[in-house]
Amino acid sequence: MSEDERLDRGRAVLGAIHGDTGRRVVEALAEVAPDFADMIFGFAYGEVYARPGLDLRSRQIATIAALTALGHAGRELKVHLKAGLNLGLRREELVEILMQMAVYAGFPAALDALLIARELFAELDATAAADPAES
Amino acid sequence: MSEDERLDRGRAVLGAIHGDTGRRVVEALAEVAPDFADMIFGFAYGEVYARPGLDLRSRQIATIAALTALGHAGRELKVHLKAGLNLGLRREELVEILMQMAVYAGFPAALDALLIARELFAELDATAAADPAES
Amino acid sequence: MSEDERLDRGRAVLGAIHGDTGRRVVEALAEVAPDFADMIFGFAYGEVYARPGLDLRSRQIATIAALTALGHAGRELKVHLKAGLNLGLRREELVEILMQMAVYAGFPAALDALLIARELFAELDATAAADPAES
Amino acid sequence: MSEDERLDRGRAVLGAIHGDTGRRVVEALAEVAPDFADMIFGFAYGEVYARPGLDLRSRQIATIAALTALGHAGRELKVHLKAGLNLGLRREELVEILMQMAVYAGFPAALDALLIARELFAELDATAAADPAES
Amino acid sequence: MSEDERLDRGRAVLGAIHGDTGRRVVEALAEVAPDFADMIFGFAYGEVYARPGLDLRSRQIATIAALTALGHAGRELKVHLKAGLNLGLRREELVEILMQMAVYAGFPAALDALLIARELFAELDATAAADPAES
Amino acid sequence: MSEDERLDRGRAVLGAIHGDTGRRVVEALAEVAPDFADMIFGFAYGEVYARPGLDLRSRQIATIAALTALGHAGRELKVHLKAGLNLGLRREELVEILMQMAVYAGFPAALDALLIARELFAELDATAAADPAES
Repeated sequence: MSEDERLDRGRAVLGAIHGDTGRRVVEALAEVAPDFADMIFGFAYGEVYARPGLDLRSRQIATIAALTALGHAGRELKVHLKAGLNLGLRREELVEILMQMAVYAGFPAALDALLIARELFAELDATAAADPAES
Repeated sequence: MSEDERLDRGRAVLGAIHGDTGRRVVEALAEVAPDFADMIFGFAYGEVYARPGLDLRSRQIATIAALTALGHAGRELKVHLKAGLNLGLRREELVEILMQMAVYAGFPAALDALLIARELFAELDATAAADPAES
Repeated sequence: MSEDERLDRGRAVLGAIHGDTGRRVVEALAEVAPDFADMIFGFAYGEVYARPGLDLRSRQIATIAALTALGHAGRELKVHLKAGLNLGLRREELVEILMQMAVYAGFPAALDALLIARELFAELDATAAADPAES
Repeated sequence: MSEDERLDRGRAVLGAIHGDTGRRVVEALAEVAPDFADMIFGFAYGEVYARPGLDLRSRQIATIAALTALGHAGRELKVHLKAGLNLGLRREELVEILMQMAVYAGFPAALDALLIARELFAELDATAAADPAES
Repeated sequence: MSEDERLDRGRAVLGAIHGDTGRRVVEALAEVAPDFADMIFGFAYGEVYARPGLDLRSRQIATIAALTALGHAGRELKVHLKAGLNLGLRREELVEILMQMAVYAGFPAALDALLIARELFAELDATAAADPAES
Repeated sequence: MSEDERLDRGRAVLGAIHGDTGRRVVEALAEVAPDFADMIFGFAYGEVYARPGLDLRSRQIATIAALTALGHAGRELKVHLKAGLNLGLRREELVEILMQMAVYAGFPAALDALLIARELFAELDATAAADPAES
């Protein structure tokens, strides 16, 4: 497989999970570190997420749990919670994952994550109310 | 629900997931902090894991990912990898979760977790070889 | 002890420590994870803080130190610094705890915590100036 | 105050808290980083612990909580648990601090700390049994 | 060396690295913890950074890498990235350090750090555009 | 560039830095996660370390600082300290990096790293004494 094929595979997986978030990451990094966007596409999505040994729903659960446990990755957590919904996880399942993290990473990490989920859900509801065809 | 019912529910869930690990934890904590075993049963298993909103396989994926990302919880990770096998996760699925953590928590955290998995799998194989009826 | 008694005990301890913060946490979690508020009341306060083996002032010192060392729990730290004042810790004692954390968790964690304390103290002074009867 | 006075003050505080642990740290670092021992004496003990604004018992509670929450500092935690006993904290008070950390840093961090406390208490009991005059 | 000499040495090193940041830190801490500014000057800069065994450029690389890996120290990271430029590190070298951290601390930590660098570079460019003599 | 070329480049960089450590990592992962060795070669070394924008000595300083700050990566730290010597960093420079981490990640993280360095240096001295031609 060539580097281009790997990047294409990564962009396809990222698009399937995150919708147009990939494009925004590229734009955010364009000035400061354009190659880092390629690392995200090529490695994180093209090499890891694209592997066949585990379904995407399970991969997304693992990512959401890890980002919550790390405690300092609120921005990424929000993006991945939204991706979880895209992959078929229900809101209440996401909330269960975050609550469970209180056991392993402590209540503050879980509470912060739940407040991020609340913010995301409110934004999605506001968008759906403004444009019912979207929901 | 009374406190006794909560503890019983927690012990039942813990037994289903970990086999006789629960008993060993009680014994290890008996001298120093007997109430902490009850917190593990009552809260972690009776109140969190026993909740109906998420299946146990998904909960176990979340726990394994979080313990890998934390980086300092090797002992608990080993116990929960074994529990993952009890809950029907295949070895290669566990390995995929651990490899994926390189993306979110760095290669050292993932590498350490993979070496713990290797150790666990070797112990299980040795037990199975010694007592084929067990496997 | 029944679950209701445990929750009541937790609410009482939380009220004694945090004043009306408990009510605000319930409201914040009401939409997204109402049961998590019960876990905070029932487990964190009803089961842990309510235990007789250690005085509340000492428990609060331990919590403030841990939240500072974690580094990512600024929101909770601010709430617990205020609770420390409610429990009789003087401002300069709180500042000593935070400064000491530079030794164990590094200067950035301690510096961030001190700036949070400064913000809290300024807010309390502004409230006291606006309503002298409150101070 | 001269650097020598600061170091002397640090050595005195460290001796009062840790007994002869200070000497062992110096010996361990003598070959690789002799100046680091002076930083521990001069800064951690001479400049921070020696400050008058907080009593040593409270400082020790903060240190034990922080080391437990960090998760990766088992060696230092054991030394500081022993120092806590030297400063008048009872075993059950130490256990309460460690259990409480489950709320803020997760159960694995608290469980690991409790097993370290168990090890320390067993060693102290074995020493006391071997030499009753010591206890 | 007296305490005053140590503080003077620390202030000189800090001034050489950070320009007038030192003054702002003193002002920020003046009300809440004036002695902590002296600890930063005296210990972090006077005792550690001022040591002859490693050049300042290498020290700055180590600091930037550590702050990125910690994940929760965005404010300090921005200050130290600017200091890196003052010490002769080029923007692209800083970006390489941050990208490399994806390997050791995960992509979220590296991505957050890169977005902080982008913000800093944009601010410096805006200042330079407003006042060309400054650049 | 094809995937094979990327892997070859990674193996070459890793060989230059770590000597035969790469081979041992492959062997350790062969049973449990053979593809993870390729990720280490292809991504960490082939895509990141091989980039031209920063010299290898500076990259190694960044890695050593990050592994020390993480606190839980003792095994990798030892490997990378040895690699630092291979890349021309002197022992005292390594010790300076580790001591400096006390400022950013706390004394326990720095102390643990220094004891790992002491262990490595002792092993290298023992090897050199046993086989003078090696040193």
